[in-house]
Order: sequence, then structure tokens, then C-alpha cells
Amino acid sequence: MSAAGIPDVTASPLAGALAQIAQEIDATFDMLLPLPGDARQCLVEAMRYAAMGGGKRLRPLLLTSVAEMYGVSRDSAVRAGTAIEAIHVYSLIHDDLPCMDNDALRHGKPTLHIAFDEATAVLAGDSLHAFAFEVLADPATSADPFTRIELVQTLGQASGWQGMAGGQMMDLVAENSEFDLQTVTRLQQLKTGALLGAAVDMGAILAKVPYEARTHLRGYARDIGLAFQIVDDLIDYEGDAALAGKAVGKDAAAGKETFVSLLGPERARDQARMLIEQAIQHLAQHGPEADVLRAVARYIVERNH
Amino acid sequence: MSAAGIPDVTASPLAGALAQIAQEIDATFDMLLPLPGDARQCLVEAMRYAAMGGGKRLRPLLLTSVAEMYGVSRDSAVRAGTAIEAIHVYSLIHDDLPCMDNDALRHGKPTLHIAFDEATAVLAGDSLHAFAFEVLADPATSADPFTRIELVQTLGQASGWQGMAGGQMMDLVAENSEFDLQTVTRLQQLKTGALLGAAVDMGAILAKVPYEARTHLRGYARDIGLAFQIVDDLIDYEGDAALAGKAVGKDAAAGKETFVSLLGPERARDQARMLIEQAIQHLAQHGPEADVLRAVARYIVERNH
Repeated sequence: MSAAGIPDVTASPLAGALAQIAQEIDATFDMLLPLPGDARQCLVEAMRYAAMGGGKRLRPLLLTSVAEMYGVSRDSAVRAGTAIEAIHVYSLIHDDLPCMDNDALRHGKPTLHIAFDEATAVLAGDSLHAFAFEVLADPATSADPFTRIELVQTLGQASGWQGMAGGQMMDLVAENSEFDLQTVTRLQQLKTGALLGAAVDMGAILAKVPYEARTHLRGYARDIGLAFQIVDDLIDYEGDAALAGKAVGKDAAAGKETFVSLLGPERARDQARMLIEQAIQHLAQHGPEADVLRAVARYIVERNH
Repeated sequence: MSAAGIPDVTASPLAGALAQIAQEIDATFDMLLPLPGDARQCLVEAMRYAAMGGGKRLRPLLLTSVAEMYGVSRDSAVRAGTAIEAIHVYSLIHDDLPCMDNDALRHGKPTLHIAFDEATAVLAGDSLHAFAFEVLADPATSADPFTRIELVQTLGQASGWQGMAGGQMMDLVAENSEFDLQTVTRLQQLKTGALLGAAVDMGAILAKVPYEARTHLRGYARDIGLAFQIVDDLIDYEGDAALAGKAVGKDAAAGKETFVSLLGPERARDQARMLIEQAIQHLAQHGPEADVLRAVARYIVERNH
């Protein structure tokens, strides 16, 4: 999958972690979403089409990496990772709908409403949304009900109007507004940052790390979240649709202000690099057990899709 | 609001309970959904438009009535009732979308995608969906995390692909299929019954009634759920759009099999009445404390909207 001049993820220290989490998330969706063999069949087929076999699995990777730092069982962490990935996937399905971004390509394959139809896409998104909370509420995710309910609360807040969905609304408004850098930053902190922050928080919640003792992790998540979005804007600005697996150049076409339109590509890239250095500094109290988180931070700024 | 020959709800013993729950659910949505004063403003306005000031609040009424039978605090029960109503409202918003039922009227006012736009309707539905789980996860709903997580699990299962969303998928498939009575029954048990059953279950969960000790309540919920749908089919078949507050005659137009098309209106009405008697028999072990549940059962079969 690598080409001249393009950083090859498979050669990075992150390669093993990325391959492992991708396999585990697919296996968990496969286990928890069996085909029902009745008229709901195509709903579950649609959920599986969207949820399995694609995506970087960045949120599960963050969640399981933090959980592993604190000795949480792999099975618990992967289940919670599958829940947050289900939220991410549902948001992509709804975001791709004709009435939203009207995208035909996602992870290099037709979007769900193209492969199936719009009504099925709405329902499959809704079903993955409920599925996420079902998985978190299940005792198999954690034996401790305090932990499970804190996971639900964290994911609910991060994904609703105070988080991701609120950011998506701002993104819709952005097409007809002249947002300044502060507003674009706020938009992205909600649209992308809230769920990345929840991923890191949920890993620490599984380990029963108290809220006050995970301030540095939230700082790390905030910085990589913003850097992630700046790089996304750069990919949209200068990217390769085949490599990105989705349409590019959409922001400029829609007349949206982005980090790139407001800062220019050079300053935007500098800003992303600065944020990544800052994110890594937040992990100073940790030794080699945080190496995967450090590698994730570097990967975010070096990726080209 | 009453007219000659039409049963007047305000004259029934249920009148006080219906008026009270309507006021309490509106007040709770009002409290928990403050306008944010930024670019997310219209998202929260859309959530409030859809969630407040309309609907029979049947699910919160069932939940709070069961909770009250077992002495649960009113505040806890109303919060849980607001959560299940948020799920019901989100499902109506998405069901009304052009790619689904394409309805322009709901509770006598324009549907959300007409009053706002389609993208806002998708996001407001998604936001009410997450909101439901946020409300349940909040310690204000119950001090006991076991109770809160059981509420989340029950509502998640009832609303996802194994419940309501699965039933909605079957309903879409129904337009191009010749469903028999057994399949229509299964469809309706999922589409409407699952959430009505969850309402009754959640009231009992708040009261820490063990699963085995609420079999009769689930029987009650199953019977009123089916009766409710038969009456809905009768309203669609013979109803008055102005009274129903939504379009009628849609099932026949869509070529869908319903209880009325399969049984005929007479047998369908007999079946609904039989189910209601059966539902009331499930409450035989209860004294006057279950009178509201008995009245709800009778109201379901007597209503004309």
C-alpha cells in the first residue's frame, strides 16, 4: 500500500498495534452482530457493511492503548473500543447521507446509502448508535456497574449535542458563515475532538483512574484531536482521493473556512506538528508504557489518508 | 377538544395522570435542553421543537405509573420517562424523513424536516438518541449505578436492531412483501411493542423489582402494545387526519398488510378488546395502586387518535 515519498505505516512501530486492533474490532462486530435470518436481515447486513473491514480504528486504538497502560484486560478494552467505533461509524453513515455531505465513497467503497438505500442507511446508523450503549451496558464489558455507567455517560456526552452532533451542526452552519479561527477550533473540538477525548477517557475509566488523575490524558487527547483535524483539512486541500478513500477538495468547494484556509498550508502544518509535540509532553510522567500513544500522535501528523 | 360521539379523555379517570405527565415531560426537556447561544442553537431549537408540546406521552405515563405502584420517587421516574420519550421522539423524526415515510404532519404541526431542514432533522434525532442515554446515566436519575446501567441496557436493547429499529426495517420491507399475520405481529411487537415493554420494565427497574417478579408486567405491556398497534391500524383505516394530527390511509396506499387488512376491521377491533381484557387480567395481583395501568389499557382501545 506504500508508494514513493509516502510514509509507510506498516514500517512504523505502530504497525502491529494498528493491525491487531483492526482484526479485534472486526471480530467483535462479527460476534455481536449475527445475521437474524428474518426481515431484519438487510439491516444487520448494512450495519456490518459499514462497521467491518474499513477505517483506521483510531478511537479503539486510543482507548485500548490507554487501558493497556493501566493493566485493563484486553477483552474489556476491545469491547469498549467496539462501542466507540460504532458511534464513529454511525456518524459517518449519517454524515454521508444526501441531505448532509452527500458522499458516495467511504474507506474506498460505496457509502451505505449507495450500496443499500437511504432509509436503510438512516436505520443502520440509528441501530449502531443504540448498539454502542448496549455493548457498554453489558457486564461482559466490565463487571463493575460504576465503570459501565461512567462509560455510558462519557460516550453519551461526547456524541450528543454537547459533543460530536453539536460539532456537525456547526459544520453545517459553517457553509453559510464566515467562521474565525476560534470558531473553527471550537467546531472541530466538538466534531472530532470530543470522541477522541472520550476514547482516551474511556480507557482510563476502565482502569478506574480517577477523573483528576487523567487531566494529562485529556490534554493529550485535545492536542492530537486538533492536530488530527488540521491534517484532515490538509488532506482535503492537497490530497489524493484514491489514497484518502473518499472525495477530497470538498471544503473549498463548499466555501467552508478550515484551518488551511485561515492559516495557509504551511502554518497549518507547523501548527499540527507543534500540537503533536505538546501532546507528547503531556505524557512525560509515563515511561515506555505510553510509547504506543506517542506513536499514535506522530502517526496522526504524518499520515496522508 | 371533544366532539359528539368521541370519547373525551379529559372526562376519564386518566385525565389527571395524562395532564400531569405531559407537563412534567415538557418541563424536564426544557430544563435539560437549554439553548447554547452559539452555532449549535438551531440544533437544540430543533430538538425542543420535536420533543416539547406534543404527543400522548404514553411511554412516560406507563413508566411513571409502574414506578409509582412501587413507591419510586416522582423525580427519578419522570427523568427516566423523559429518556424513553426522547428515544420515541427521535424515532418519529427519522421515520418522518423523506427517505422513510415522508410525512409532513406530526402532532398537528409540520414535521421537523419541514419546519427546519432534513440535515437538521437527522442531527436532532441523533442528538435526542444520545440525550436519552445521558439522562439515564446521570446520578440524578437514580443514586444506584446498578439501576442506571440496567435502565441503559433495557432501553438500548428495546430501541436497537433487536427492537424498535429492527421493527422499522421490517416495516420498510413490508411494502414489497406479503406478510402474514404472524409476521405482522412480530413486526409490531418490535416496532411499537419493544419500547412500550421497556417503559413498563424501566418503571419496575427503578423500583428494583427483580426480573422474575415482573413477568406479569411484561405480559401486560405485550398485550397493550399489540392492542395499541391494532387501534393505530384502525385509525389509519377509518381515521380523521385532523384528529389524528398526522396523515391517515397510508398503509392501504403503500400496499402494506396490517391487522385490519388481514383480519378485517370488526375482528381487529374484537382482537384489540380481547387483548386489553387480557392485559388487565395480568394485573390481578395488584389492588387500586394499578388502577392507572388499567385505565391506560382501556384508553388505548378507546382512543381515536
